Amino acid sequence: MTVHTPAPAVGTAPAEGPILMAAEGTAAFESHPRATTDPAARAAASTDRSGYEPATVPDAVVHAESADDVVAALRLAHEHRIPVVPRGAGTGLAGGASAHAGEVVVDVSRMNRILSIDPVEMIAVVEPGVLNAEVNAAAAEHGLFYAPDPASTAICSIGGNIATNAGGMWCAKYGVTRESVLGLRVVLPDGRIVSTGRRTIKGVTGYDLNALFIGSEGTLGIVVEATLRLRPRPVRTETLAAYFDDVEAAGRAASAITAARIQPSILELMDGPTLDAVDRAEGTHHRALGGAFLLAQTDGYGAHLELDAIAEAIAPFATSVHRAADTAEAEALVKARRDAIPSLEQLGRVSIGDIAVPRDRLAEAFKGLEEIAARTGVRIFSVAHAADGNLHPMIVVDPSESITEGPAKAALGEMFRLAKRVGGTLTGEHGVGLLKREWVREELGDTSLELQRAIRDVFDPEHILNRGKAL
Amino acid sequence: MTVHTPAPAVGTAPAEGPILMAAEGTAAFESHPRATTDPAARAAASTDRSGYEPATVPDAVVHAESADDVVAALRLAHEHRIPVVPRGAGTGLAGGASAHAGEVVVDVSRMNRILSIDPVEMIAVVEPGVLNAEVNAAAAEHGLFYAPDPASTAICSIGGNIATNAGGMWCAKYGVTRESVLGLRVVLPDGRIVSTGRRTIKGVTGYDLNALFIGSEGTLGIVVEATLRLRPRPVRTETLAAYFDDVEAAGRAASAITAARIQPSILELMDGPTLDAVDRAEGTHHRALGGAFLLAQTDGYGAHLELDAIAEAIAPFATSVHRAADTAEAEALVKARRDAIPSLEQLGRVSIGDIAVPRDRLAEAFKGLEEIAARTGVRIFSVAHAADGNLHPMIVVDPSESITEGPAKAALGEMFRLAKRVGGTLTGEHGVGLLKREWVREELGDTSLELQRAIRDVFDPEHILNRGKAL
Repeated sequence: MTVHTPAPAVGTAPAEGPILMAAEGTAAFESHPRATTDPAARAAASTDRSGYEPATVPDAVVHAESADDVVAALRLAHEHRIPVVPRGAGTGLAGGASAHAGEVVVDVSRMNRILSIDPVEMIAVVEPGVLNAEVNAAAAEHGLFYAPDPASTAICSIGGNIATNAGGMWCAKYGVTRESVLGLRVVLPDGRIVSTGRRTIKGVTGYDLNALFIGSEGTLGIVVEATLRLRPRPVRTETLAAYFDDVEAAGRAASAITAARIQPSILELMDGPTLDAVDRAEGTHHRALGGAFLLAQTDGYGAHLELDAIAEAIAPFATSVHRAADTAEAEALVKARRDAIPSLEQLGRVSIGDIAVPRDRLAEAFKGLEEIAARTGVRIFSVAHAADGNLHPMIVVDPSESITEGPAKAALGEMFRLAKRVGGTLTGEHGVGLLKREWVREELGDTSLELQRAIRDVFDPEHILNRGKAL
Repeated sequence: MTVHTPAPAVGTAPAEGPILMAAEGTAAFESHPRATTDPAARAAASTDRSGYEPATVPDAVVHAESADDVVAALRLAHEHRIPVVPRGAGTGLAGGASAHAGEVVVDVSRMNRILSIDPVEMIAVVEPGVLNAEVNAAAAEHGLFYAPDPASTAICSIGGNIATNAGGMWCAKYGVTRESVLGLRVVLPDGRIVSTGRRTIKGVTGYDLNALFIGSEGTLGIVVEATLRLRPRPVRTETLAAYFDDVEAAGRAASAITAARIQPSILELMDGPTLDAVDRAEGTHHRALGGAFLLAQTDGYGAHLELDAIAEAIAPFATSVHRAADTAEAEALVKARRDAIPSLEQLGRVSIGDIAVPRDRLAEAFKGLEEIAARTGVRIFSVAHAADGNLHPMIVVDPSESITEGPAKAALGEMFRLAKRVGGTLTGEHGVGLLKREWVREELGDTSLELQRAIRDVFDPEHILNRGKAL
């Protein structure tokens, strides 16, 4: 590899213990066959889709093609105490994959093979760089599906899903990533490999290291293989869209579904401003039908009966209810929800909130978000995984503005206070990353944070991996 | 409290680091208002339902009535380095709650209140000593249920369920304890209290300490409060029982249900010898109908249609299929399965295996168990949570015989080899406890075990809690 002398660090790397000089890190990685210091590659690996823009770029990028490449990279990092940022598809929403001068990125996006699918056991073994939608396409050939389906399914990778314990629409019924990952192979910060979990559905030998890695945001190890649990595709799926005067009415309708003891497989909410943005980007006409939108899907042998129950539960709140007549109509409704983030990205720089609240506090949370928008002067667009109480309030600022200071930052902080006030949490499924660190201690408390940092020290005593993130 | 001078330890306490003299431990706990050295209390707290009989009894028992009592006990233990064995209902099946001379038992079975139920959020907050069936009875008043339902539901407590990550029948569809525990309050070995998890369905701030405590078998802390996720009671439930010539045919039928992409809420298998034992104990007549039994239940809006699909899938294997005509018939069939362990306990000392295997290897596993019985000369009775591939092969020996040596021990070891050979695990839901420790390293591997022990050291550097168990 050609070694470029990188620009000196300008101080945006997370400060935590001594950071090496950039040049020293670059030099050590000269021997890695997959490393590059190409400026374009380094710039491309410097941030994610959180809207965060680092002031510097990493010293080098390792484009790993195998577990051995990852092992070699971490051995070098361990030996020379070089901070490493693990990277997958770069679609994270919290700055977890952002990298700075003095750091080396280990990118696993080329490790993108589906190694095996066992259709009888309903298990897929995959590399971390495979995209979520590719796993689902392969599973569909066997009448199966992989339940965690972030809105970004077409562009996000399984490794990143694992790093953040990603959710999505179907997790209303089928649980988040933790419930669908049976086992992992992980390269530890010193280059050793450990296997966690198993191929069986149940198993309790030892502590649940599998769950510990899931959601650890790349701070404990780099996943090089995952054993995923697939599920039978439902024999029947039914879909409806309902429109409401405003988002509070839609929030009350969602809570009414929960209170009526119904288990939708999808329950998604969008507010009026988001509908406007989607209509503008996609040429659809949702906003004309109401000031808020609720998408509900049921599945299973009694899907049609369960959708009847949903229609009945939301009737007192809705201005209109439309049942999808066929698969094409259903897919168009689901697509509207998936289009929300890309549509908003056409309006400016987007910073996506991710608070989760108790499910009967949804209407209150939406009201609180309106107040935050009024108070801070930022524009907030809201969608929610309503069956889980997980809201994504999206702050949109001018592309020239920062999301890590000024009104956008203030609004993010107020969202956390709002979540806390109603008994909720800072992040439901996107992770803490770089952007939400300052509220972590307040949510977890001193004792929990101390234990978690001590656990990190067990895996990564030198803080090589994703330093300054997550905790 | 009155201090009795305990009998000297006779060497059965798990050796791991220095163990205090029994008398010293007793003396330190004199100041605890809930401690007793009454010989009957100490004998009662010395073992569980695993069939293991310790040669000594613990020095004292603390009957905690509050979190403060647990804190006080662990502060004493921490200060004086006294090994503590946490105890709930004492229904464990792996010796995890067994206690010996030199140890003090902290029994939380009197902490048995349901603190609150939120019927809208579908959350129960409970103390650890409340029985599993009591939670379900309280939830039923609100149209809800608590999914993890071990066969011992009437006598096992939530704290023990958490310690072992207990499963049960309904976890075929609804997941194990980990999927139903949202949050915990835990007293650490030094007396500090930490809260884990949250009241919301989703949340990823920090590492998953909640999952780390679940299944840790009392080695990381003592749970004093749990926030449980309840679920809507299904609108409809349908049940059938099928009989087969032998257990291999029943195993093939269970695998056929999985392969047909059907999701039963219960799928339980019993072999002929177990049916004999149940019939003898309960006056039923299952054995006359076949050499193996499969119980299947479906639930939800389309339960009747899904049960049709199950009947179709198993028809090629079954000799007869009986659909329950009403709730009473369905409950009688479920009861037959719940009666299995108590029925076998009438035949002798029972040691319960708990291997889990890939779901399409069930028939092979049953065949392997028959070979183990023939080779070791022990009687093995088998039941299985068939949808999860979790088998409970029960070894029954004469009450005068030990289960920790001789043929019973040899058979347990062979079961582990069998599980390993077909890609399975040592324990699906009962835990390692004292009785399965010697196979843990072989399953986990050196690196994983080393990490897990280092994690234990973070929580319990002095190894005060349940020393010599689990890892």
